[in-house]
Amino acid sequence: MPSRRLRFVQPLRVRFAECDMQGRVFNAHYLTYFDLAHTELLREAIGSYQRLVAGGHDLVVAEARARYLAPAHFDEELEIGVAPEPLTTSSMTSHFTVTRAGAVLTEGHLRHVCIDAARHAKAPWPDWVRDRLAPYASD
Amino acid sequence: MPSRRLRFVQPLRVRFAECDMQGRVFNAHYLTYFDLAHTELLREAIGSYQRLVAGGHDLVVAEARARYLAPAHFDEELEIGVAPEPLTTSSMTSHFTVTRAGAVLTEGHLRHVCIDAARHAKAPWPDWVRDRLAPYASD
Amino acid sequence: MPSRRLRFVQPLRVRFAECDMQGRVFNAHYLTYFDLAHTELLREAIGSYQRLVAGGHDLVVAEARARYLAPAHFDEELEIGVAPEPLTTSSMTSHFTVTRAGAVLTEGHLRHVCIDAARHAKAPWPDWVRDRLAPYASD
Amino acid sequence: MPSRRLRFVQPLRVRFAECDMQGRVFNAHYLTYFDLAHTELLREAIGSYQRLVAGGHDLVVAEARARYLAPAHFDEELEIGVAPEPLTTSSMTSHFTVTRAGAVLTEGHLRHVCIDAARHAKAPWPDWVRDRLAPYASD
Repeated sequence: MPSRRLRFVQPLRVRFAECDMQGRVFNAHYLTYFDLAHTELLREAIGSYQRLVAGGHDLVVAEARARYLAPAHFDEELEIGVAPEPLTTSSMTSHFTVTRAGAVLTEGHLRHVCIDAARHAKAPWPDWVRDRLAPYASD
Repeated sequence: MPSRRLRFVQPLRVRFAECDMQGRVFNAHYLTYFDLAHTELLREAIGSYQRLVAGGHDLVVAEARARYLAPAHFDEELEIGVAPEPLTTSSMTSHFTVTRAGAVLTEGHLRHVCIDAARHAKAPWPDWVRDRLAPYASD
Repeated sequence: MPSRRLRFVQPLRVRFAECDMQGRVFNAHYLTYFDLAHTELLREAIGSYQRLVAGGHDLVVAEARARYLAPAHFDEELEIGVAPEPLTTSSMTSHFTVTRAGAVLTEGHLRHVCIDAARHAKAPWPDWVRDRLAPYASD
Repeated sequence: MPSRRLRFVQPLRVRFAECDMQGRVFNAHYLTYFDLAHTELLREAIGSYQRLVAGGHDLVVAEARARYLAPAHFDEELEIGVAPEPLTTSSMTSHFTVTRAGAVLTEGHLRHVCIDAARHAKAPWPDWVRDRLAPYASD
């Protein structure tokens, strides 16, 4: 019997300060949107990002990408969907989809790397993190 | 005889407000760095972004990507190198390299699309823009 | 019998990108917090900021002030209380209190001025805006 | 014979990402402008903010204020003037004036407090900081 994959979606209201002279969300802010949705996924899956830090690990972002298909505007209510790939030994690639009423506006990904916070070097994911994120992962 | 390619490099001092709790420039801000270096390239090559707008055109960002190799920190002096590819009919892909004293910290690209500002639809680059950007382009 | 004053409080989760190297929300971001709480107050009171714009008016910020009493940190859940003073002919001073579990972290105000969007000149508040904001005002 | 007061002015080019839908620099960003001009003043006067940190001290912002007289726009070249008041035992109030070609657009102040970084408690300014900032101070 296949396990059911958990889906994570973070609602978001566009702030005035995030919109540029063209009346659209400035491109860099989507990476901040990805980041906060990722934080919320971690909260749901592992308790909080801080639990990871408390265990002596930390996350760094190794890669970010976004494709802008249609603009989001001030005050619009968006949804940020997060779909992580299965974790590798020490990295995690998460795919993001920014939608408004079902229409895809932006899609992209972030690749996080797990590090040992003290040595600031790449480290394998703790097992408990791996276990708790597994139900969210898809290929 | 091959023409000489012009190189564009924008110096930048990291602001306190751009650094996160890990003491590093937050990943999204690199896209803002790319954007401002691109603006400065346009100033040198075509006069200014506003000249493009005055001619009835505008730019939208269709894609952004960054790979983070090493962190930049508060107050550091960086250089943002910009290397555009040859323009296609209506798009421009520019490659960025963020360096500190020659060491590459982040690299990435932005793909801009030229639009007709009134109709807000894809438009071919004006010839004068194409001509002036050509000396900066490389494959 | 005195009328009951309506209170407006906007919940907010601190984003990672808003925290600086000291692990605290960077001072400038509190003005963005004030701004978004003000937007939400307008939504509740007058429908939306855009209704004001649709009527030919707009808002500009003439003054901002914040006093920082204690720091807010990443991921904390804050509440932004908004208490507008009674409107003058064309301006609106709103007081903000950022609290965490009842403790005041930051307090301040914004003074907005109503302008005629076409002429970009100071204009009296439309009566319907004045009427709808009155129940929120306090001295 | 009165000593000559040193003046500090930081040039700044407005970034696209700092401008809002009204085509103006968003109000909160002026506090970031104040902050970076203050950092540059510290560099000139005391070597760098990091020298203060290396000596076991740090700065926190206790108060910020801005009055917006006229808007700044994308790509404009501004000047941020900084005029500190004489230091008190452990605080420093600096006045800022944002000008464009001599016209004042925004004025305001920041009040910084010197803290002992280890105890995170208010501390008197080190004498060497006091001595080096004195020539910049005015009432």
